[in-house]
Amino acid sequence: MKRVGLLTSGGDCQALNAAMRGVVKSIVNASDQVEIYGFLEGYKGLIYGNYKMLQSSDFSGILTKGGTILGSSRTPFKLMREPDENGLDKVEAMKHNYYKLNLDCLVILGGNGTHKTANLLRTEGLNVVTLPKTIDNDLWGTDMTFGFQSAVNIATDAIDCIHTTAASHGRVFIVEVMGHKVGWLTLNAGIAGGADIILIPEIPYDIKKVVKAIETRHKRGSRFTILAVAEGAISKADAALSKKELKKKQEKNIYPSVSYQVAAEIQERSGLDVRVTVPGHTQRGGSPCPYDRVFASRLGSEAGKLIMKGEYGFMVGYKNREIVKVPLEDVAGKLKYVSPDATIIKEAKMLGISFGD
Amino acid sequence: MKRVGLLTSGGDCQALNAAMRGVVKSIVNASDQVEIYGFLEGYKGLIYGNYKMLQSSDFSGILTKGGTILGSSRTPFKLMREPDENGLDKVEAMKHNYYKLNLDCLVILGGNGTHKTANLLRTEGLNVVTLPKTIDNDLWGTDMTFGFQSAVNIATDAIDCIHTTAASHGRVFIVEVMGHKVGWLTLNAGIAGGADIILIPEIPYDIKKVVKAIETRHKRGSRFTILAVAEGAISKADAALSKKELKKKQEKNIYPSVSYQVAAEIQERSGLDVRVTVPGHTQRGGSPCPYDRVFASRLGSEAGKLIMKGEYGFMVGYKNREIVKVPLEDVAGKLKYVSPDATIIKEAKMLGISFGD
Amino acid sequence: MKRVGLLTSGGDCQALNAAMRGVVKSIVNASDQVEIYGFLEGYKGLIYGNYKMLQSSDFSGILTKGGTILGSSRTPFKLMREPDENGLDKVEAMKHNYYKLNLDCLVILGGNGTHKTANLLRTEGLNVVTLPKTIDNDLWGTDMTFGFQSAVNIATDAIDCIHTTAASHGRVFIVEVMGHKVGWLTLNAGIAGGADIILIPEIPYDIKKVVKAIETRHKRGSRFTILAVAEGAISKADAALSKKELKKKQEKNIYPSVSYQVAAEIQERSGLDVRVTVPGHTQRGGSPCPYDRVFASRLGSEAGKLIMKGEYGFMVGYKNREIVKVPLEDVAGKLKYVSPDATIIKEAKMLGISFGD
Amino acid sequence: MKRVGLLTSGGDCQALNAAMRGVVKSIVNASDQVEIYGFLEGYKGLIYGNYKMLQSSDFSGILTKGGTILGSSRTPFKLMREPDENGLDKVEAMKHNYYKLNLDCLVILGGNGTHKTANLLRTEGLNVVTLPKTIDNDLWGTDMTFGFQSAVNIATDAIDCIHTTAASHGRVFIVEVMGHKVGWLTLNAGIAGGADIILIPEIPYDIKKVVKAIETRHKRGSRFTILAVAEGAISKADAALSKKELKKKQEKNIYPSVSYQVAAEIQERSGLDVRVTVPGHTQRGGSPCPYDRVFASRLGSEAGKLIMKGEYGFMVGYKNREIVKVPLEDVAGKLKYVSPDATIIKEAKMLGISFGD
Repeated sequence: MKRVGLLTSGGDCQALNAAMRGVVKSIVNASDQVEIYGFLEGYKGLIYGNYKMLQSSDFSGILTKGGTILGSSRTPFKLMREPDENGLDKVEAMKHNYYKLNLDCLVILGGNGTHKTANLLRTEGLNVVTLPKTIDNDLWGTDMTFGFQSAVNIATDAIDCIHTTAASHGRVFIVEVMGHKVGWLTLNAGIAGGADIILIPEIPYDIKKVVKAIETRHKRGSRFTILAVAEGAISKADAALSKKELKKKQEKNIYPSVSYQVAAEIQERSGLDVRVTVPGHTQRGGSPCPYDRVFASRLGSEAGKLIMKGEYGFMVGYKNREIVKVPLEDVAGKLKYVSPDATIIKEAKMLGISFGD
Repeated sequence: MKRVGLLTSGGDCQALNAAMRGVVKSIVNASDQVEIYGFLEGYKGLIYGNYKMLQSSDFSGILTKGGTILGSSRTPFKLMREPDENGLDKVEAMKHNYYKLNLDCLVILGGNGTHKTANLLRTEGLNVVTLPKTIDNDLWGTDMTFGFQSAVNIATDAIDCIHTTAASHGRVFIVEVMGHKVGWLTLNAGIAGGADIILIPEIPYDIKKVVKAIETRHKRGSRFTILAVAEGAISKADAALSKKELKKKQEKNIYPSVSYQVAAEIQERSGLDVRVTVPGHTQRGGSPCPYDRVFASRLGSEAGKLIMKGEYGFMVGYKNREIVKVPLEDVAGKLKYVSPDATIIKEAKMLGISFGD
Repeated sequence: MKRVGLLTSGGDCQALNAAMRGVVKSIVNASDQVEIYGFLEGYKGLIYGNYKMLQSSDFSGILTKGGTILGSSRTPFKLMREPDENGLDKVEAMKHNYYKLNLDCLVILGGNGTHKTANLLRTEGLNVVTLPKTIDNDLWGTDMTFGFQSAVNIATDAIDCIHTTAASHGRVFIVEVMGHKVGWLTLNAGIAGGADIILIPEIPYDIKKVVKAIETRHKRGSRFTILAVAEGAISKADAALSKKELKKKQEKNIYPSVSYQVAAEIQERSGLDVRVTVPGHTQRGGSPCPYDRVFASRLGSEAGKLIMKGEYGFMVGYKNREIVKVPLEDVAGKLKYVSPDATIIKEAKMLGISFGD
Repeated sequence: MKRVGLLTSGGDCQALNAAMRGVVKSIVNASDQVEIYGFLEGYKGLIYGNYKMLQSSDFSGILTKGGTILGSSRTPFKLMREPDENGLDKVEAMKHNYYKLNLDCLVILGGNGTHKTANLLRTEGLNVVTLPKTIDNDLWGTDMTFGFQSAVNIATDAIDCIHTTAASHGRVFIVEVMGHKVGWLTLNAGIAGGADIILIPEIPYDIKKVVKAIETRHKRGSRFTILAVAEGAISKADAALSKKELKKKQEKNIYPSVSYQVAAEIQERSGLDVRVTVPGHTQRGGSPCPYDRVFASRLGSEAGKLIMKGEYGFMVGYKNREIVKVPLEDVAGKLKYVSPDATIIKEAKMLGISFGD
């Protein structure tokens, strides 16, 4: 008998359901005696003992479904309230529920923040296996996360749509792409969408160089310019500030996001008409693309294998085209950034893309 | 010999190229002697005599291409500068160029503002045929405009994507849909996307009723609510103001658009977490959907037929599933609104959709 | 209290679920006392009393789902076996189950064959409301059926994909489009996909004219030709045969479908390399397009209204952009064909499309 | 000054244009003195000296366009006719044109057959750089080829569409997937589409086991089964035959493709209704997916770098997430098969997928 807890935490993304289906199908195919406990709304469900028993059939037909059938919560773990009723702190409450249900292990699907808590639970003695879920692809220890490629597709669709309008009206357009503090999503969607300028957090931009790149294009006869700007993009000036100074400056910021600021600066310096589009949360939603479905299914299947073997304390990741297990302590608390010297950046520059640096 | 001028004016949309292809193919198939003059960037091209000669082959392969191969301009006609060099005013300049090129007629593709100018040119004696282009579907005299169905698809895609995230996180989500001063686009995308609440300009909303609709849903066990909000949506209070008062009030408005204001009000009154997504200009772009390709091709083809017969002064429209010709003077300056008593509104209400009224 | 039976019959298509959701939502919003009986696999479920009770919540989230949650059956009614156990014939068995469950009415979603049986049940005294479901758009009494526009989209996608290959390789390509005995689907997908030649059942083709159209294109410098061929397309020679002669001829036919025959004839007469693509059942599947979702929701909503008013014996249809009720006896047994003289055919010809006639 | 010849050979696929754009953009950005010669319709263009001079602007806007702006030819090199006019054999003719135009190098985009000829030209002393183009992903020396992921998407779409119909009607459906002699495409589309049974050339199938897998599903309550069958799938019996015996047997084969044979066998053995769908050439067409656009752009950019450095005789490939150069002699004449023991096969089996072995 295997008693397996499942939970999805952090911002939702595509292929969460595909990954859970993979885990459950592979365990059920390997063992007749399985009980699946699905904790609702992420760690909250584990803290408050809020779960439902799931059958194999609950995972049929969800391969193509976006979101998560368990619900999730974006409340950071440290801000979650303590459970009131029993005086335990959050971690104790989670351990209490884990042992009360006599679980063999927890399968936790999440991103960066989620992995910190998962590792904490591991150090507290719980058996944990995790899966790398995030559209940001910023998790340490894996070349790829599921959700990423689907989000690239949606962001690229947005750039494609904007392309026809930009070309027809001879304007400067900014498409703001998600990605939290890293530039993977913007970089890939930008190249795929044929963006002329890409601004990512890892390569702070000089607004003068951005404007110059636009003006050079227009001088050469291009009627329009498209910028893919990461939600975490930052100017050279701001990147040089201390954390404290930056925070102070941002508090006075009147723009809803960095794209609007870049737009205002370009407009002021060049006199050109600049428009901003923010596809926002659409980038997390909808049916996962085939790449993510295969990838998440494979990771899920390997997580099932680890569980059957009783190997715990790992994230199932992807390295050099192989599925690998990565110790949780190596993953927790680290971000995987785009290196400004990465081959893909050099290639993008050879294609004529400016990074404003 | 037919000498035909073509121009696209106003915001671009899908199927402009398909429509022009239809016009040109049908003329070329009917006559060996055709000269096509494509004026660049809307009326500007006609004012400044900025055009290029086009061949039939220039229209090959553009059926599926978004935007317009002629470029467009959103500058309202009344704000366009007079041509400097020859002292003529704008209208005289257009007439001058029309006669200089010895044109038989002008085919003008555009929306509401465009039709006003087109009708002006007609009264000045030019031969004009127009085609109803707008994602807003707000043109008088036609049941449908091309671009509309493609824009519905994109806005619906956005709502679909948001659905999975909303369901996973148990939040209130607003998707802001284009449509200028009318609600067609929001209404259709809202129903298609399964929105719970739809706010359109024609039915001013009462924020208390909006909040109540949300709370009723949550009481019945729904974890989330999705609102499709037209960019032109307006509250009952604001709708009751005089134009002057409203303008004054809007000048003090701190929100980038109505959706953000609605979001703030819901959040304040209900305490729920509300997120806004603005697909924006993506709704005008990308490849036209098959419906629009067929529709625009048919309209274009009929425009060609009118030109061969020398019948001018009409918009080619669509009424009761028939292609019809509508006198330009009947179209100019009028908007086609959603009636608050329309059957589709009643049907939407029977489906449980709230309009906040 | 309303007791409503639901069944979907015939080939499945997109928006069946959306339509049923519309029916149920509108009844549930109008009355607190509703019981929904979903008969499984079409008329079979009614004959054998095979049903499940459905809740309003069973219809949540199915707006965007293809197929039918009730299952369907393509077995023609006349070929369905009599129920063995009780000696009743099929019709008596259906009446027996209808009265046993004390139903107020049956909502039947289906196409042509389905409507014949629905009308039979009406004449037998059952309360019946029907909804026009078919990708073929061949139902009499309604301008549009749901499923049609979604199928147009899929067939057009196929033609779009083939376009790039055809253009790259300089070949003749045939895309075989569904549509049963009528040409609506092929005609619309053909125009939308930019097909050069369209063959539909209503306009029998002359293979010599087809080949000539191809050769004329190639002489004018086109490297490729794309044909959209309806699965029911027929040559002039075959159309002139008696039913008996035709059947005899078809029995000897070695081609899996008409497209392969057309391909062989073109290849033989022109020496050109011809390829056939058959998207087949994909045209019935996948998520309904926004147009169909809105349309099916509206029809379902109106069906609910009829039920609340106790008006039975109608198909809910669409005429001149209005939702209408059409007496079942007017619908049953009739097909809605494309007229060879229809405006859309003339327009298509003006665009340069050949129908091989 | 760099004089660069470009040609695309073999079946077309998505992202050929993106790759060529990458090559040209990176050379043009590195050097002011570039002449681009585009040979038309593959090696034919080089043999007959049929080319056009291309400007940088010819490569603008083609990132998202399927097919190849140069045209291609699927005639195997060994079957191409000798050029008549000058008595040279094909290889001499190609060298003649290469030297006549004073080319620095040839960039050849193609698959397996293309690479054999490219390597032949290298041994004849021409400077050659190649790019791995094929939806089959069967090229030796690279983990990935462009076109593959786009084709996976289209094949998966087809399976998705079929899913709703299969589920509604309780049938067995076969989707025949391309891939030539290897199973990559079918394997990935099959997993992504949630196929229950996957048949690929590398794992010959036993029809009894296929039927058993279907019957086991149906016993467990599934109403339908979906098979993804590679166009190159082969039964155990046929795989055991000698090449000669197999050829003889295939000559008598009455089925248009292996899927129809599998369908007939399942139908005969199980009595179940089996339907076949063949998306065919649609799998090669349409706009490349974002993954392929980025991938092809990167490969093209690196090819440009090799050309600027004068490094010839390589295919630009992808190994362990790095862009690499692979000597042409290592690539030519080898196929990259799916290993029956590959991790992905084991994972698929853990998910419950049967390979009929």
